[in-house]
Amino acid sequence: MYTSVVTGGAGFIGSHLCEYLLSKGERVIAVDNLGSGNMDNVKGMLDDDNFSFIEHDVREPLKIGERVDFFYHLASRASPSDFGRYPIEIMMTNSVGTYNVINVALENKARFLLASTSESYGDPDVSPQPETYWGHVNPVGPRSCYDESKRFAEALTMAFIRRQGLDGRVIRIFNTYGPRMRPDDGRVVPNFITQALSGKPLTVYGDGSQTRSFCYVSDLVRGIYLMMHSNAKGMVVNLGNPDEMTVLELARKIKDMTGSPSEIVFKPLPENDPLQRRPDIARAKALLGWEPEVSLEDGLKRTIAWFRERMNKKGRGP
Amino acid sequence: MYTSVVTGGAGFIGSHLCEYLLSKGERVIAVDNLGSGNMDNVKGMLDDDNFSFIEHDVREPLKIGERVDFFYHLASRASPSDFGRYPIEIMMTNSVGTYNVINVALENKARFLLASTSESYGDPDVSPQPETYWGHVNPVGPRSCYDESKRFAEALTMAFIRRQGLDGRVIRIFNTYGPRMRPDDGRVVPNFITQALSGKPLTVYGDGSQTRSFCYVSDLVRGIYLMMHSNAKGMVVNLGNPDEMTVLELARKIKDMTGSPSEIVFKPLPENDPLQRRPDIARAKALLGWEPEVSLEDGLKRTIAWFRERMNKKGRGP
Repeated sequence: MYTSVVTGGAGFIGSHLCEYLLSKGERVIAVDNLGSGNMDNVKGMLDDDNFSFIEHDVREPLKIGERVDFFYHLASRASPSDFGRYPIEIMMTNSVGTYNVINVALENKARFLLASTSESYGDPDVSPQPETYWGHVNPVGPRSCYDESKRFAEALTMAFIRRQGLDGRVIRIFNTYGPRMRPDDGRVVPNFITQALSGKPLTVYGDGSQTRSFCYVSDLVRGIYLMMHSNAKGMVVNLGNPDEMTVLELARKIKDMTGSPSEIVFKPLPENDPLQRRPDIARAKALLGWEPEVSLEDGLKRTIAWFRERMNKKGRGP
Repeated sequence: MYTSVVTGGAGFIGSHLCEYLLSKGERVIAVDNLGSGNMDNVKGMLDDDNFSFIEHDVREPLKIGERVDFFYHLASRASPSDFGRYPIEIMMTNSVGTYNVINVALENKARFLLASTSESYGDPDVSPQPETYWGHVNPVGPRSCYDESKRFAEALTMAFIRRQGLDGRVIRIFNTYGPRMRPDDGRVVPNFITQALSGKPLTVYGDGSQTRSFCYVSDLVRGIYLMMHSNAKGMVVNLGNPDEMTVLELARKIKDMTGSPSEIVFKPLPENDPLQRRPDIARAKALLGWEPEVSLEDGLKRTIAWFRERMNKKGRGP
C-alpha cells in the first residue's frame, strides 16, 4: 500500500487529490495550516482509516512519523485576492516550505511533485505556452510574491534534483475550477457563480476580451496522479485545459446556466493581470496520455450545483 | 555617527564597501559566513576601532547587538562557477537570508538595501536593459538558482516595503571588477588576468562576440552609497558601466596590458550564458547623479597590479 502526503490537503485542489488517492487504495496524509484551506473540505474523509490530517505550517520543519512514498506539495495560498494581503507568507511558504518538504521527501527516498502554476509564465507574450517558454514576469510587481516564489520553488526543486538526486517533478497548473473553491477566492469562476446566484452584478475586469482556459478539478487531479506515477524525474509538465474563451463569454455562460437576472458590469483591469493564459499540453499528452475530458458545460453544472447547495445551507449569500 | 551592517562584508564588493563606509566616518559591521568571502579581504580593517566582523551565516537569524542605521545586504555567492556546486545554499541565502536581514532592519527601523544583479534580466532580449524590463530567465535552467533567487529577493523586499513599511531599495549590479576578485571566480576579468599572468591560454567561450560591460569596483561602491542615502524607497536602480565591449576585445586588451605571450583559445558556450548585458543607467544618473568615472584602462591597470602582487607573494600561480 502506497502512502502519500498532500501538503495543502485541505485546500480546493488538495482535498480533491486526497479523495482521488484514497479511491486508488492509498494511505493519505493531508498536511495543512488551514490558512486558506478549510476543514470542511476534508471532513468527508476523516472517518476513513486510510486518511490522516496533520495541522501544520510547512514553513516549519515537517515530521510525518511514518514511511512515505509520495509527496504532493500543493501548500500555498493561490488566490489572487491573497497576493496583496499575504505576500510574505506566500513567499516563505513557497521557499522555506518547499525546502522543508523536499528534505522530508529525501529522508523518505520518496518521490516529490511540486505544484507550480501557469503564473510562472506571468503575462505571456506567446500563446499557447509550452513548458519551454521562459515566461514574462515582473519581479517587483504586485503579483511577484506569487509568480516569483513559484518560479523559485521550481528552481529549488531542480537544484535538489541536480545536486541531491531528488526524484522530483514539476507541474504547472492552469486555471482550475470546481466545488470547494472559496467564494472570495478572487478568481473568475467562483466570482461569477456567487455573483450570479446572489443576484449581484457579474464584474468583468477590463473589457472581458482577455482569455482564460478552465480545467475541471477532476481532470486536473487525474493528471497530477499520472505525473507522479510516470517516469518524469526532472520534467516540467503543463496541466490545464487548452479550450480558450474570453472572460466575457464565461460571464454570459454562467449568467445563462444559473438563470440569473444579474447584469454584467465592467471594472478597470488590475495591474499586471495576464491578458491571455492557455496551456500547450502536447507534453502531457505524449508523456502521460492525459488530456481533459470534462466539458465546460458539465464542469460548470457541477460547480454551480455545489455553490447553490452551499448558499442554501447557509441561508444567505456565500 | 551612522552604523552600517554589510552582509557579505568579507566578499569582493562587500569589503570595498566596508572600506568606503569607514572612509565616510561610519561605524561598520561586516557579517560574512566566509563561504565565498575571505578574511584576507577585511584584514586591513580589523585594527580600525570603527570596524567589527561577525562570522555568521544569514540563513540563521541574525543578531547585531547594537543599533544599526543601514543594512547593505550583499551576502550571496555570486560566481557562476559556484552555481553548479552550491545551488541550494545560494537559493536559501537569497530567500531565508534576505528574510532574516530584513527582519533585523525592521527591528532597527533601519534602511535596507538589497544587492540584486543584472542576472535578474537573464538573457535579455532588449539592450541596454532599463529597470522596467522584466527579464528573460529560464526558471529551471542551470543558472536559475542564482537568477531566480535574486528575483525572489527583489520580490520579497517589495513585499516588505508594501506590507510592513520597510524603507527598502534595490540595486541591480552589473559586471564589476577590481582587486579581491577570486581567481577561480569563473568571471571573465579574473579568468583572463590570471591566465595571462601565468602564461596559460586565455579561454573565450563561444566566438567571443558576446558583449559585457565592466564597472570598476570603486565606482560601484560609490553608487551603492549614494543609493542608500537617496530618497529611493521602493526603487530599483541599475548600477553598472554602459561601455560595452566584446569578450574577445577584452581578452586582447588584457593580453596586451599584461604583455602576456598567452594564446586566445575558444571553447563552447555554456548553456543559458547571456549573450549581452548592458545597463541603462539613466535612472541612476537622474536619481543619484551617478555614473562611472574610472576608465577600463585605469581599472584594469589596478586590477592587474593586484593580481600580479598576489601571485608574486604566493610564489606560484594564483
